[in-house]
Amino acid sequence: MNKVCLVLGAGRGIGATVANTFSKEGYHAYLCRRSNQEGLDESIQLIKKQGGSASGQLLDATKENTIEELIKYIENDIGQIEVLIYNLGAQSGFKSLQETSLKEFEWGWKMASQGLFRSAKVICPLMAERGKGTIIATSATAAMRGNKNQHSHASAMGARRLLCQTLNDEFAKQGIHIAHVIVDGMVDAPDTLGKILGPELFKELRKTKGSKDGLVMPEKIAEAFLYLHNQHRSTWTHELDLRSFSDSSWWNSN
Amino acid sequence: MNKVCLVLGAGRGIGATVANTFSKEGYHAYLCRRSNQEGLDESIQLIKKQGGSASGQLLDATKENTIEELIKYIENDIGQIEVLIYNLGAQSGFKSLQETSLKEFEWGWKMASQGLFRSAKVICPLMAERGKGTIIATSATAAMRGNKNQHSHASAMGARRLLCQTLNDEFAKQGIHIAHVIVDGMVDAPDTLGKILGPELFKELRKTKGSKDGLVMPEKIAEAFLYLHNQHRSTWTHELDLRSFSDSSWWNSN
Amino acid sequence: MNKVCLVLGAGRGIGATVANTFSKEGYHAYLCRRSNQEGLDESIQLIKKQGGSASGQLLDATKENTIEELIKYIENDIGQIEVLIYNLGAQSGFKSLQETSLKEFEWGWKMASQGLFRSAKVICPLMAERGKGTIIATSATAAMRGNKNQHSHASAMGARRLLCQTLNDEFAKQGIHIAHVIVDGMVDAPDTLGKILGPELFKELRKTKGSKDGLVMPEKIAEAFLYLHNQHRSTWTHELDLRSFSDSSWWNSN
Amino acid sequence: MNKVCLVLGAGRGIGATVANTFSKEGYHAYLCRRSNQEGLDESIQLIKKQGGSASGQLLDATKENTIEELIKYIENDIGQIEVLIYNLGAQSGFKSLQETSLKEFEWGWKMASQGLFRSAKVICPLMAERGKGTIIATSATAAMRGNKNQHSHASAMGARRLLCQTLNDEFAKQGIHIAHVIVDGMVDAPDTLGKILGPELFKELRKTKGSKDGLVMPEKIAEAFLYLHNQHRSTWTHELDLRSFSDSSWWNSN
Repeated sequence: MNKVCLVLGAGRGIGATVANTFSKEGYHAYLCRRSNQEGLDESIQLIKKQGGSASGQLLDATKENTIEELIKYIENDIGQIEVLIYNLGAQSGFKSLQETSLKEFEWGWKMASQGLFRSAKVICPLMAERGKGTIIATSATAAMRGNKNQHSHASAMGARRLLCQTLNDEFAKQGIHIAHVIVDGMVDAPDTLGKILGPELFKELRKTKGSKDGLVMPEKIAEAFLYLHNQHRSTWTHELDLRSFSDSSWWNSN
Repeated sequence: MNKVCLVLGAGRGIGATVANTFSKEGYHAYLCRRSNQEGLDESIQLIKKQGGSASGQLLDATKENTIEELIKYIENDIGQIEVLIYNLGAQSGFKSLQETSLKEFEWGWKMASQGLFRSAKVICPLMAERGKGTIIATSATAAMRGNKNQHSHASAMGARRLLCQTLNDEFAKQGIHIAHVIVDGMVDAPDTLGKILGPELFKELRKTKGSKDGLVMPEKIAEAFLYLHNQHRSTWTHELDLRSFSDSSWWNSN
Repeated sequence: MNKVCLVLGAGRGIGATVANTFSKEGYHAYLCRRSNQEGLDESIQLIKKQGGSASGQLLDATKENTIEELIKYIENDIGQIEVLIYNLGAQSGFKSLQETSLKEFEWGWKMASQGLFRSAKVICPLMAERGKGTIIATSATAAMRGNKNQHSHASAMGARRLLCQTLNDEFAKQGIHIAHVIVDGMVDAPDTLGKILGPELFKELRKTKGSKDGLVMPEKIAEAFLYLHNQHRSTWTHELDLRSFSDSSWWNSN
Repeated sequence: MNKVCLVLGAGRGIGATVANTFSKEGYHAYLCRRSNQEGLDESIQLIKKQGGSASGQLLDATKENTIEELIKYIENDIGQIEVLIYNLGAQSGFKSLQETSLKEFEWGWKMASQGLFRSAKVICPLMAERGKGTIIATSATAAMRGNKNQHSHASAMGARRLLCQTLNDEFAKQGIHIAHVIVDGMVDAPDTLGKILGPELFKELRKTKGSKDGLVMPEKIAEAFLYLHNQHRSTWTHELDLRSFSDSSWWNSN
């Protein structure tokens, strides 16, 4: 029977890289992303070429019952989900209040918080019955404090953080390790940062900042996730931050 | 022309009491609550008997366009809203994850965060144009950290807090005072605590804990709100906590 | 019998202004500052001219037994201390680690934390016996998080904040209101900001930023302190922040 | 040339165990503790028996120049300090304000904060010149918030935390990884918990709580420290928490 690492939000940045890392540890990686079948296939093929086991699908996590049915399908047909990586991004850009639509505000909440709640409702009882499991939510500085032109993102991620804390209170003692990982800096990711900046600027940034490790590297985030998953239950981490040595932390002015 | 204090969530606890307090300062108090026409009328009549000016209506703030149309109506027909008290409670009781329905989770978010976003979208441009205005969000311990069996409430209030911070960043410099008030303790309120406990237990609690000031008194919360509204703009408070002297703070174990 | 407001750190900024404000409420203001007898006399005379009651002395609070004997003297000879304003500043400028001497690091701790501990040890039993009293610690952004070149100041103020929380846990229920006030911005104060900037720059800053309320005004801080002191014990605030409407909060990037 | 892991506070709990763990990775472990030569020798012998390299000494870190001369001695005579574990405990028991002496309050600050400042002043320039190095401060819940009868401990640890953040701001970009690790629960350590409880109670607790992983295990804390030291500099963690799966987090009520 497969042990599965399910990645929700498996773009070619943190998500697909974490899937890849866990596949090397013997997990079947199941990758879901909203769009880009080609990108998804590429990520899956990469794992297979390396001798790993992987599959996946496009999934609109904001749609009713999508996550719920996905988890049931994987548990029935593929294997037990031992690790759930909740990596759905809720960032919709820097916008003033008037530029932020109600639809966008709701979308942010669905991605950041509601989807995690729905995931937890289905997977937690299964993990609790087995007495083990790991849920890691990728998070951001915006989960720690409101910020300029982040009306949707900050409130959405604030909700994610406190949901993680509440889930942790109920389920840690049932053997489920819930971790909230604050990525506090720009990530070297073509599917997120690359899209925001455009190909030229992204290439330039990688050359300058990235070559000096100034961008957060997805494969190192993946190592952090793997470390968290492997922590002994006498010594679990609920929250940690990750940033480049050359970046200021969110609580410091540059 | 009236200057208006609009209270969203004007139950006979914090909401109606704040309305009352501001009415004594010359504001027309406009009270909205979801249900209980009788309770609403009673609160309005009380203000009028004291020589104040008040009106109001039942309003389901979670319904599309309700808040938006309300604000436009008041601004057109009653007067400028100088103070908006966002007092909608998002508490739906202590429940395990499985006991918490998706509907309830969404309701919590709508009450705690989405409604505030919608309110701000309509009122902030008006206040900004006038270069002044106050928005006070009543908040709770649950906005500071996740907690046992508060899956809906904590994530919803976490979103409220970070939305307040983000609004503050954009609008303080435009003259709008946005304050997030953490009520960290049980409030002496028949329409919330009274309903949770039932009439007998509530009566008992008021006799014991309340007589020794162990319950947070709505009229004293109202004084805090009035103080915040009257603060000089060189010295604005964005966040404060309120609790009884006899209660432990949320960050301390009892 | 006099009721006394004791101000430790009564420079012509927050300290002397708070003393002045409380004197108008009928308190005998007792002002202490480390140096500048002339400045001290001026502040005392100003209160007297306004019809208030005031006295004071120079005091090096970092010296052994100074605070302790002062409090005993006041309680014996002048009146009961109902309000203690702990306004000693621990800022010693922006310096790299190597520029920060061990002596300076110790001085910061003494000003920020040790002096408050010593004050509390003497005054808390007296206030607790009377079942009432207020201790307000002026604080700063540096109490919330470490910051660039603030090795001494941030660690010292971090200690102050957590000491306030601990004192609050023990003494709130005994009737002592302990408040930690975060002044998050530049204060319009000749004895602190004025000295850091020099007379020319300070004059210039007051003309530009201050005239638009961009500097925190000491008399408005004093109003906040008075409000805190007057809060009903059912609804006490332990912590609040104060900043100009035109400033970004410490958790936001400018 | 040896690469050295210096452990300040190397009692038979976290400190000696971390030394042991790093010795297995090829570091010369240098162990310092205030007292108990026998316990120190035992910890050193254990490392040697396992084929590791270790030495050490008794050291009163609160004494002038002790840490400073120690670091110079090690750098000159033993090898470069690549890892500094600052594990000095500042806990002096649960005491009311009156039970807490000024001497004890000062001792707490020296252990928690002043010693770290002194360590950093000597080691940071050396590490910065080499462009690498790791400083890990073991910390506690008391660094996050004041708490009942923790007047000395909480203020001392609050100072430690904000000092770590300030050091991080200056030195991360110079290649020094500074981490603040919050141990949020009872540690299975004979030299600290064992002494507080006494041998009988400690034995009992290990049997009941410890056998179910309810005590934080020092060797798992050591793994966390090693993971932090090995993190790639594009993805450094400044702060993480560690607690047993069966414990509530500090921000939750039990």
